[in-house]
Amino acid sequence: MTDLNRLDAHDAAARLARREITAVDLLRACLERIAEREADVRAFVRIDADAALAQARALDAGPIRGSLHGLPLGVKDLLDTADLPTAYGTPLYARHQPAADAAVVALCREAGAVIVGKTVTTELAYFNPGPTHNPLALDHTPGGSSSGSAAAVADAMLPLALGTQTAGSIIRPAAYCGIVGFKPSYGRVPRTGLKGLSDSLDTIGGFARSVRDTALLGGVLAGDARLARCDASTAAPRIGWCRTPWWGSADADTQRTFADAQAVLAPQAAASADLALLPGFDTLVGLQKAVMAWEMARSLSPERLRHRDALSAKLVALVDEGLAINGALHAAHLAALAGWRARADALFDDCDVIVAPSTTGEAPAGLEATGDPLYCRAWTLLGLPCVHLPFARGAHGLPVGVQLVGRMGDDHRLLAIAHWAHERLRG
Amino acid sequence: MTDLNRLDAHDAAARLARREITAVDLLRACLERIAEREADVRAFVRIDADAALAQARALDAGPIRGSLHGLPLGVKDLLDTADLPTAYGTPLYARHQPAADAAVVALCREAGAVIVGKTVTTELAYFNPGPTHNPLALDHTPGGSSSGSAAAVADAMLPLALGTQTAGSIIRPAAYCGIVGFKPSYGRVPRTGLKGLSDSLDTIGGFARSVRDTALLGGVLAGDARLARCDASTAAPRIGWCRTPWWGSADADTQRTFADAQAVLAPQAAASADLALLPGFDTLVGLQKAVMAWEMARSLSPERLRHRDALSAKLVALVDEGLAINGALHAAHLAALAGWRARADALFDDCDVIVAPSTTGEAPAGLEATGDPLYCRAWTLLGLPCVHLPFARGAHGLPVGVQLVGRMGDDHRLLAIAHWAHERLRG
Repeated sequence: MTDLNRLDAHDAAARLARREITAVDLLRACLERIAEREADVRAFVRIDADAALAQARALDAGPIRGSLHGLPLGVKDLLDTADLPTAYGTPLYARHQPAADAAVVALCREAGAVIVGKTVTTELAYFNPGPTHNPLALDHTPGGSSSGSAAAVADAMLPLALGTQTAGSIIRPAAYCGIVGFKPSYGRVPRTGLKGLSDSLDTIGGFARSVRDTALLGGVLAGDARLARCDASTAAPRIGWCRTPWWGSADADTQRTFADAQAVLAPQAAASADLALLPGFDTLVGLQKAVMAWEMARSLSPERLRHRDALSAKLVALVDEGLAINGALHAAHLAALAGWRARADALFDDCDVIVAPSTTGEAPAGLEATGDPLYCRAWTLLGLPCVHLPFARGAHGLPVGVQLVGRMGDDHRLLAIAHWAHERLRG
Repeated sequence: MTDLNRLDAHDAAARLARREITAVDLLRACLERIAEREADVRAFVRIDADAALAQARALDAGPIRGSLHGLPLGVKDLLDTADLPTAYGTPLYARHQPAADAAVVALCREAGAVIVGKTVTTELAYFNPGPTHNPLALDHTPGGSSSGSAAAVADAMLPLALGTQTAGSIIRPAAYCGIVGFKPSYGRVPRTGLKGLSDSLDTIGGFARSVRDTALLGGVLAGDARLARCDASTAAPRIGWCRTPWWGSADADTQRTFADAQAVLAPQAAASADLALLPGFDTLVGLQKAVMAWEMARSLSPERLRHRDALSAKLVALVDEGLAINGALHAAHLAALAGWRARADALFDDCDVIVAPSTTGEAPAGLEATGDPLYCRAWTLLGLPCVHLPFARGAHGLPVGVQLVGRMGDDHRLLAIAHWAHERLRG
């Protein structure tokens, strides 16, 4: 029973539904793992074991609530919770108690999830790190901004956790920590109760240790039961391989992992070819940076105007970069963004899924930075759903993998293909 | 000096900038008007005269802060304020004190606005009315959901106020109260600190008594100085006249007002023709309703799960309608929405601006409902910027006017054309 914390969410849910295990048992196993490891990993801002136990007991005493019945869940501290303070990764909100749960937190509770605590986010989800360590190598970053959620799931403290992505804040920490991360299509998951940073980019998603588990969570977030059925049999997909215009930034680990994925999947795919990028695709990283800078500078107006001295130098630099972009140029950027989103379907003319790098390499050493979201920016800008699949190790023994990108709105199909691919990549 | 409350924002700003009047003088005139009328109109949820006077004194003692320097502003109580409780139009949040200003509130403060108080919103910005009366006929609705902001500006309690629109919550109350309302392009104005109801539709905008004044406020909201220059000389526009597929719902007042606008503007326009609607345009009202219902049902998950009994029957009906739409159908709706937004530019192939009805007629009698947003739903769905222009009276002597709709992102051009048109319509 002591290894219940290592169960995948899907298996745990099945056993809970059959009443073979209790939500209290599962939670206690997770809490024990947290007690054992949290001093080293520091994934949490706050844990409320008593409240979680009360939730678990209530679930054990009642009917099966939904697809997440009894599953312990971590909530990134950028999402409001009615019964736990929410600090958005900055001392400015250290004592902040929201009045209501974020919509996604309420949806997860409705489906039966047990909220264990709030997980570390970087400062206002930008680049200034929190205290979290990579559980696989404590002197390396777990990535960010959803640092604590990724670390907690990777370290078997929790089976599931919520994250958010504006540049690469789900896919990158999933990659660095060696778990599955899922960023849904832009606009599918309600954002009420998320500390909004960039209206055009912010997307809520989640982490788990398998594609099926992220799909279980994703189905609740998107209110679409098709997502959770990703393990139904899938026709072999047509794959478009995308080294991206930034391939030169990929280190040997990333390049080899990409080649390994191709060697395994191409022979089993219905079709396999290098993706033809649309002209101008190389401008998307710059466009994503500019849209994010303008919007974060305006969204964080209360903080920059009243508490500028309490913001990190990294965040102040971003805000100043955003304030330097005038409204006419930003309007042009938004028009370009809309044009790109309207054309993005063409990327899938000859493929069902794109495979691309997730990160430039393994999790970098040191805790003073969270790594580079380079390989996520374009897909986030396009609003496309993305899944990170871990399946290999780099030169330092840390995880590497690839990112699968799907067609806008086809989250269920992307997850089904990701499940197909992951089964083959894990061998 | 006692009529300072009737000054347009633009004129007041000019006098303030020349130090001919003080922010305190202007505020006192507004507060006197409020004291005189608020018992009848009930535009406000809360007024903090002392805090507003302190802000005004500080502005008078310092340099000119920005384009809204010293201008009293009302804030719809759907937008967070750090120094005033924010109840979102429901007793559920009666004691709710947000930790921070909404981004737009902070931006207006930065530009020098004086926050006078919070204005009435319908319950969570849907159809269950607040206590506000139409200041032009107290037994008629002011419209909604931005009821208090429209009423306060129409009644010369304030020169400027903030509103939000998800279906028709800016344009409709502007029309019913006989003022100018401006809904910017979707995605231009940061929404952090807005109680989010529908991520795909929610848009923040504002009210004033002239196009120039709404443009002054709009320029701050969108961070685009071009908006405020709407009174620079404008070439005569090409006008597309759009009776919409729902013309049969327009009463005699609306039909006559539309014809009057055409009679005045067509001879002075560079071109004037009936707008050719895209095939399927008649489906947009149903699509807007479905997207809004799905998203509001999910966004309001904390409220529907914990406090369903405290929601009005109207809101519960909307939530249930939204919950009955499954995720696959909603994904299809979002794909349709994206397709429409991508094609909407084609509406402007032969015109620079669309003129359309704003409402089905004058403000209806009674306070138990806020009127029909029918003529706003399609434009909100398309994300296009809209301005209401008041210029006539209906059978009961209440205001009627028309709505101008611009190309996505061309808010500055729409406002310039609206200024041109309003000068001619007001005669």
